[in-house]
Amino acid sequence: MSRTVYLNGQYLPEEEASVSIFDRGFVMGDAVYEVTSVLGGKILEFDGHVARLNRSLAELEIVCDISREEWLEIHRELIKRNDLDEGMIYLQVSRGNAGDRDFHYPPAGTPPTVVLYTQSKPGLADDPKAQKGITVISVPDLRWHRRDIKTVQLLYASMVKMAAEKAGKQDAWFVEDGFVTEGSSNNVYIVKDGKIITRQLSNDILHGITRASLLKYAAEAQMEIVERPFTVAEAQAADEAFFTSASAFVMPVVEVDGVALGSGKPGPVSLRLREIYLDESVKAAI
Amino acid sequence: MSRTVYLNGQYLPEEEASVSIFDRGFVMGDAVYEVTSVLGGKILEFDGHVARLNRSLAELEIVCDISREEWLEIHRELIKRNDLDEGMIYLQVSRGNAGDRDFHYPPAGTPPTVVLYTQSKPGLADDPKAQKGITVISVPDLRWHRRDIKTVQLLYASMVKMAAEKAGKQDAWFVEDGFVTEGSSNNVYIVKDGKIITRQLSNDILHGITRASLLKYAAEAQMEIVERPFTVAEAQAADEAFFTSASAFVMPVVEVDGVALGSGKPGPVSLRLREIYLDESVKAAI
Repeated sequence: MSRTVYLNGQYLPEEEASVSIFDRGFVMGDAVYEVTSVLGGKILEFDGHVARLNRSLAELEIVCDISREEWLEIHRELIKRNDLDEGMIYLQVSRGNAGDRDFHYPPAGTPPTVVLYTQSKPGLADDPKAQKGITVISVPDLRWHRRDIKTVQLLYASMVKMAAEKAGKQDAWFVEDGFVTEGSSNNVYIVKDGKIITRQLSNDILHGITRASLLKYAAEAQMEIVERPFTVAEAQAADEAFFTSASAFVMPVVEVDGVALGSGKPGPVSLRLREIYLDESVKAAI
Repeated sequence: MSRTVYLNGQYLPEEEASVSIFDRGFVMGDAVYEVTSVLGGKILEFDGHVARLNRSLAELEIVCDISREEWLEIHRELIKRNDLDEGMIYLQVSRGNAGDRDFHYPPAGTPPTVVLYTQSKPGLADDPKAQKGITVISVPDLRWHRRDIKTVQLLYASMVKMAAEKAGKQDAWFVEDGFVTEGSSNNVYIVKDGKIITRQLSNDILHGITRASLLKYAAEAQMEIVERPFTVAEAQAADEAFFTSASAFVMPVVEVDGVALGSGKPGPVSLRLREIYLDESVKAAI
């Protein structure tokens, strides 16, 4: 069945949803996005995603005057129209259609292009991968240097996911100046002697909404958190590793560059954090 | 008057040319492009641009089986239908419409999205800026590290052009590890004691089609060329500077970060090279 998607104020069948060939998102990668999970028909981390969206838009000086309440209404309408129980809502805002291609931003008042759609993923919260853990390779981090802005310039992330698959693995970790920055579309963590180690926030990594909540929940559970960069070698010698993202929540990582971590199975800290995160975020879902 | 554009085998009015919201070019920056100049209704550097396009496509494993002859036919048809005398033809190929958003490449056989359109720029070859020269600022090079692949991930290039304009200047030069890589959408050169100095090819810069031809013409004119990186300070102390691009040809640069170069006017080498380049490339146009 065809989805109903949202495009610039209209709800329409996905096949009819198109943007101009001059859209800045298509010709310049000039767009930002968010992905929000839905469990039991309710939205997880809604306010966190709206706040980050507004930050991305502000950093790029894209003017989009949709309010929190309007975003919420669109999300809920899409959930209803598509009967979404478990899955994600994808949201993208581009600088709009300038009527031609030009490096210069379009004139003030050019409306942004706003697209939202659902992605149904039954069983999202019970992903069997979480019980088995995933394997990753490391790759040089060749992305642009404002990874704190969530732009659609995702080609390299896509390339390294394909490279991981070709290597028979499931994801890739970016390495820059000897240290892991983040995963291809997630924030990464190692656990050593009970300590949770994850890279501190900067322009080098995405400021994960799941990351922020997880660190809060972990602190509330009296777990020790150390925010600093770590190397691949350190990860390989760690007791556990995991990543967080809006749609995978907390995902154990059991192998890095062919080296099994700890027991080679998801560790207790990772699994406990996944449980806590899902409990708490579902409780707070709206 | 509305342009006639080319989209996936069809010629249609520009207002009707649109792509799916799931197009990889729109959601992932997963597309490559070329811009080719037209003077007197003839195409400059056609084969160079087709060769680079094919290289970009191959690097990204995007399958697009349009032949040189077919590309030429489309270019010529667009020139004819839009009565283009002076201007550019923009060409973009994305990995196509996957039907949904996914980091994973769409299945083999998914057709790429192919878009071409004209941009009329009367007086392109007689740009008065070439007689005055342009002013530039330097900015940190925050782009991804495969600049040899001509992708549409141009947001940062667009941002720095806007930054240059805000500073009252006309373009920006990217600086990485202390050395100039290239301009926001062009290759850059300095001239010192008669020597033309420009950064050597690598993944750090675009392999300019205009650059390749210019270096050939300069060598034929017995000019000395040194391919190595240079700093902003070195540029500021140079006799001349200029940039090359497909649509600006050879453009004198007369100021870098507020420091006037040489006489503060376009230098003789830059102007001579512009003349040679235009003469030769128009002669070879098809």
